[in-house]
Amino acid sequence: MNERISDIGEFGLIERINALLSREGIRSRRVILGIGDDAALFRPRTGYEILVTCDSLVEGRHFLPRFISPQDLGRRAMSLNISDIGAMGGRPLYALISLGLRGETPLADIDALYRGFLRELNPFEASIIGGNLTRSGDKQFIDITLIGEVEQGKALTRSGARAGDVILVSGYPGQSAAGLQLLLQQAHDPKIIGHPLVKVFNTPSHRALLGAAVARSGLATAMIDTSDGFLADLGHICTGSRTGAELIREKLPLSTELDQAARTLKKDPLDFFLGDSDDYELIITCPEKNLNPVRSLAAACNLPALLTEVGRISDQVGEMVLIDREGRRHPLLPAGWDHFRLQEA
Amino acid sequence: MNERISDIGEFGLIERINALLSREGIRSRRVILGIGDDAALFRPRTGYEILVTCDSLVEGRHFLPRFISPQDLGRRAMSLNISDIGAMGGRPLYALISLGLRGETPLADIDALYRGFLRELNPFEASIIGGNLTRSGDKQFIDITLIGEVEQGKALTRSGARAGDVILVSGYPGQSAAGLQLLLQQAHDPKIIGHPLVKVFNTPSHRALLGAAVARSGLATAMIDTSDGFLADLGHICTGSRTGAELIREKLPLSTELDQAARTLKKDPLDFFLGDSDDYELIITCPEKNLNPVRSLAAACNLPALLTEVGRISDQVGEMVLIDREGRRHPLLPAGWDHFRLQEA
Repeated sequence: MNERISDIGEFGLIERINALLSREGIRSRRVILGIGDDAALFRPRTGYEILVTCDSLVEGRHFLPRFISPQDLGRRAMSLNISDIGAMGGRPLYALISLGLRGETPLADIDALYRGFLRELNPFEASIIGGNLTRSGDKQFIDITLIGEVEQGKALTRSGARAGDVILVSGYPGQSAAGLQLLLQQAHDPKIIGHPLVKVFNTPSHRALLGAAVARSGLATAMIDTSDGFLADLGHICTGSRTGAELIREKLPLSTELDQAARTLKKDPLDFFLGDSDDYELIITCPEKNLNPVRSLAAACNLPALLTEVGRISDQVGEMVLIDREGRRHPLLPAGWDHFRLQEA
Repeated sequence: MNERISDIGEFGLIERINALLSREGIRSRRVILGIGDDAALFRPRTGYEILVTCDSLVEGRHFLPRFISPQDLGRRAMSLNISDIGAMGGRPLYALISLGLRGETPLADIDALYRGFLRELNPFEASIIGGNLTRSGDKQFIDITLIGEVEQGKALTRSGARAGDVILVSGYPGQSAAGLQLLLQQAHDPKIIGHPLVKVFNTPSHRALLGAAVARSGLATAMIDTSDGFLADLGHICTGSRTGAELIREKLPLSTELDQAARTLKKDPLDFFLGDSDDYELIITCPEKNLNPVRSLAAACNLPALLTEVGRISDQVGEMVLIDREGRRHPLLPAGWDHFRLQEA
């Protein structure tokens, strides 16, 4: 009972993880060698290109163990990688998991972490084919590399938007940032973990099915996920596409939950919507004539009313403006999450 | 002068790294998108399979900054991943670099680290196509994912050895472990960094060119790199292939430098040879009739006299023995490097 990593050692832990993955994971037919040799080996599909992304979560920086269960942490870490593959229009296939762990971590936590990974991978029939285990310093870390595929020539980048294109966004950006603020402000209250916005923060959705459908349709010109916050990522599209953007204030999808949380936190909900927030929604641009076909893709993905039109791409390179109810134009400065600088201030 | 990461922030650091990679790195024609979108994108070659490996180095555990320059650290981290791709018979193509850093780290160190990566990647025309930067806890970490390719059906695993096969090893295993011991024992002496075995420890060679040539030839039955130590990795071949192994004591390539260092350290050089040592040499098995053709591959790779025949694969499943000059048989127990358990003892 309550065994720890140091009780079974590195090789014991690898065996235990492999056994769990064999029981509860999916092994793709295209994987020739999974975990257990010098490298994993797979056969790529003819007519497809390969996508690769990686992302790390460091304890104390990206997650606080007392606020998130190991299984939710696994889901969260995998979701944000799946979101990156999906934002290119791809389908996730294979994950490599690199963990920095402390010897005293309970084995049950590691099991739960991997169950979190599998909960996100299994729906795509994606599998864990490799990884690395090591001891960390004072902070544990999770580094995931996720490999995906996309039909040749179908990937959607951040650099294809054109002046006049409609800007769409999925879901309700800003909810995750508000959830994080609630969590920090009301840390003394154990019930805060159950708050809907805290749940959005702990286990954000990805929109990879929608992203793949949009890319396959050929209807959109650019796509990105909102991992740096809505405005920063819209800014990436503007920079990449050499365009600007006009947002219509009253069209922005601010959820009722976000409005309520903003009142509790005495903040403007717009700041949450535009600023740093780990929501992993999609920003999509497309010509106006494709607006309804793109929206119906969301409906086909069982994501009803999920895509909201929020503005237009403009030809004012690098300029983003917010147009209010009275038609006044407010310039917007993209401000993304900066792990090194903002934390120093 | 002496700028630090916190002076330019995460996005500034990303820009700086991208500029360095554009100037000094190689961009493959098959890379459709490198760094700068949600994910990297490349087109796999028809007739090839994809290899993937990942490995982490954690400060204080796998390296001590005062004993290794940032450039050598970059070379070391990349070499051990290249070794894994090479040990399957593959060619390295694309790397993703995930770093956990402290804000006070000088930018010059980061430049040097990346130059170390490129020094190992450029000879293969391999490129860095993605990664992640984050703040670490008290210990910095480097986690590399390396993607390679191998002709379809040509990959060499640890599970193909057959009783009667000859066992070959490249180079002089054990030198790295002795180098590490010298470094720890003589840490007070700044000149120790220049000792040839300390250099082997700090910037180990990989044998990826040889590994690729051996796999392409179809002459060998199994291959593995010695990243867990010679005996542990020979043990992996025995387990994977359901065989045993017989080693001939007087055939083992113990270098003069290793002999000398062992005397200094008052240890048996054999313990260094068989035990944990980060040499990244190759163990290769092949039918006896292929022995000379395989050895001539090493010569063709400009690695003269690099492959030594050290024994035979046997049908005694899981049994490894050392046969001494008098013909006596000593049973050997594989003991690999265990990051969690050995450190606890």
